[in-house]
Amino acid sequence: MLPEQPQAEPITQILAALRRFLPEKPSLPLHEPSFAGREWEYVKECLDTGWVSSVGKFVDHFEQQLADYTGVKRAVAVVNGTAALHVCLRLVGVEQNDEVLMPTLTFIATANAVSYCGAIPHFVDSEEATLGLAPDRLADYLSDIAEMRPQGCFNKRTGRRIKAVVPMHAFGHPVDLDPLLEVCGRYRLELVEDAAESLGSYYKGRHTGNWGKVSALSFNGNKVITTGGGGAILTNDEELGRFAKHLTTTAKVPHKWLFVHDQIGYNYRLPNLNAALGCAQMEELPGFLAAKRKLAESYRTNFAGIKGVRFFTEPEFAQSNYWLNVLLLEPQYAGQRDALLTATNDLGIMTRPAWTLMHKLTMFADCPRMDLGVAESLESRLINIPSSAVLGNAV
Amino acid sequence: MLPEQPQAEPITQILAALRRFLPEKPSLPLHEPSFAGREWEYVKECLDTGWVSSVGKFVDHFEQQLADYTGVKRAVAVVNGTAALHVCLRLVGVEQNDEVLMPTLTFIATANAVSYCGAIPHFVDSEEATLGLAPDRLADYLSDIAEMRPQGCFNKRTGRRIKAVVPMHAFGHPVDLDPLLEVCGRYRLELVEDAAESLGSYYKGRHTGNWGKVSALSFNGNKVITTGGGGAILTNDEELGRFAKHLTTTAKVPHKWLFVHDQIGYNYRLPNLNAALGCAQMEELPGFLAAKRKLAESYRTNFAGIKGVRFFTEPEFAQSNYWLNVLLLEPQYAGQRDALLTATNDLGIMTRPAWTLMHKLTMFADCPRMDLGVAESLESRLINIPSSAVLGNAV
Repeated sequence: MLPEQPQAEPITQILAALRRFLPEKPSLPLHEPSFAGREWEYVKECLDTGWVSSVGKFVDHFEQQLADYTGVKRAVAVVNGTAALHVCLRLVGVEQNDEVLMPTLTFIATANAVSYCGAIPHFVDSEEATLGLAPDRLADYLSDIAEMRPQGCFNKRTGRRIKAVVPMHAFGHPVDLDPLLEVCGRYRLELVEDAAESLGSYYKGRHTGNWGKVSALSFNGNKVITTGGGGAILTNDEELGRFAKHLTTTAKVPHKWLFVHDQIGYNYRLPNLNAALGCAQMEELPGFLAAKRKLAESYRTNFAGIKGVRFFTEPEFAQSNYWLNVLLLEPQYAGQRDALLTATNDLGIMTRPAWTLMHKLTMFADCPRMDLGVAESLESRLINIPSSAVLGNAV
Repeated sequence: MLPEQPQAEPITQILAALRRFLPEKPSLPLHEPSFAGREWEYVKECLDTGWVSSVGKFVDHFEQQLADYTGVKRAVAVVNGTAALHVCLRLVGVEQNDEVLMPTLTFIATANAVSYCGAIPHFVDSEEATLGLAPDRLADYLSDIAEMRPQGCFNKRTGRRIKAVVPMHAFGHPVDLDPLLEVCGRYRLELVEDAAESLGSYYKGRHTGNWGKVSALSFNGNKVITTGGGGAILTNDEELGRFAKHLTTTAKVPHKWLFVHDQIGYNYRLPNLNAALGCAQMEELPGFLAAKRKLAESYRTNFAGIKGVRFFTEPEFAQSNYWLNVLLLEPQYAGQRDALLTATNDLGIMTRPAWTLMHKLTMFADCPRMDLGVAESLESRLINIPSSAVLGNAV
């Protein structure tokens, strides 16, 4: 019997697949926006009417589009996803010195928003099935460290209250929310969804961001839809929705001319100019999502035969927006991640690794955390590859 | 109908003057933007190229225009004036529990920014000559309450450090900065200029915002120029300028693909889309300022003969942008302020009073303060009248 022909190294095969499969261009961004709809019409209307700033019909319309699309009762447009997260945490009552559970595998905004409240991020591990927070392992961990008191859940080790948990739907793939909701119920934790990356993603048929008490969206330039910079707060609690609007508009009490503010609020209003862009982008969202699914499906088939790497597909309970497509190297090839990043970027095919894990950053190094082995493994093996909607129509 | 009492005389005459003098329109806003320059061209370029978000050539160009215009070494564009103030205070080292001196007669942003740092606003009175912070009375007050220690200036009454002073150039009229700088030197206070309203205003020939260690501008929809929402940090300290850029771009360490952040930063970047608007507006700024001076001069002559009211003109050491024109009722007519506000707004001539003084708001009621008699008098008598640049070309 002949010895099995050794396959080429995964990195060589991955590069070959990307070059064969992606359109030949001097540069392929990770995620570029597309403005092929009514963007110019709406933006021009802002300029023609002079309504470019913090109030205007596009802000109202964009908020309604977001509420209708995600199925929540109220959406409040804000200046970016970080601002949305910050206000979400204030809305559920996160206070100075509280701890907030969140994945270590996330973008910096999740941890920064916790810090803005004077609260402390408490890092949770991820699971490979979703790339997001691992509810079962969190439950085990809390059974060790948590103590229930009349005022809520307390960390026995630090003595601090644990007020909320903020799952982040990484790269658009939904976290397993049902077991997480069970944990929230058991430990009286508020659920705040960081849905910054998951507009167009559904968990068991209901939109992400429609599960938490409040949730945050982002419309940064690299997201599924963009407003230049922008974000939104989602909630099914109409009272909280009104309060979100109040807090994000400097907590000004409505009056024809008097300037009275009834608490410390924020200037987090999304300008009408940016909302105009958002209104046009929302009209295109179904098309973007269809193109992105087509792209993901092509990636899946093109990478199917390559040993040592897996193209990440949506969990079985989810429909994902495939915001940023993910390649996962098998653990034995983790050492080749940087070579692959270098080779692809040198070819003009933009790729990047996961964000540096939060607990590895200087300012969060001393924050409480559970064992983070899965997140550490994922970080060492994960690569994002070009994911623009426009590519879905080209492949 | 207004009762024909002798006291009603100024208000009747003011109304008559406004109706005679202002163009007849169903509604005259307090300050509306004008987009008669290259706004369309630049904004469309963003859409056509896809560069709408947090980096792009318009951001760089807008920052350079601002630096050139104000004469500072570095301008950093941010998402609004509140964000600019917040970062300015961080840049000069304001920390939790510090006190920050600021006028009580200001917009809420000044006090909120102090609160975001965990610091405490300490309210200072204004002077009628500038409508801004009164340096001489502040000096007298500090000689009572301040104690110099190796760590800086301390409030003897509260035991807290007083770290900075934030004059605000109210309605565009420059504060008397020379005596204030003298006070800052004597008490080792950092000077942060809140120049949100004073783009185009000069103190003794040098632009406002070019006097403090750092300064904040705003480009909200009602300002002299607008980016929809936007602001900027100005500084002559290049090191601080670089740090401002770093802090406002999530404190991300530059790298081709790694996401490492070296401290808690902010997502305060101005989108390229908004900066594009700003670039076009900056080209029009000289025209706006000329038209606004023409309008102010017409107001001055039209109100010159009316007893009981004074049209506020720039202090002798200043050239003001006349952002929002100001009528000051004489103290004996203060009681008619609200009747004048009602009558003008009912006619579609938008007017408004000064902001409610900061120390009168619930959340700042317990903050330390000096005697605020002048600010209280000004608040009771001050009315802003329509001030759009476009009116200057119509009168």
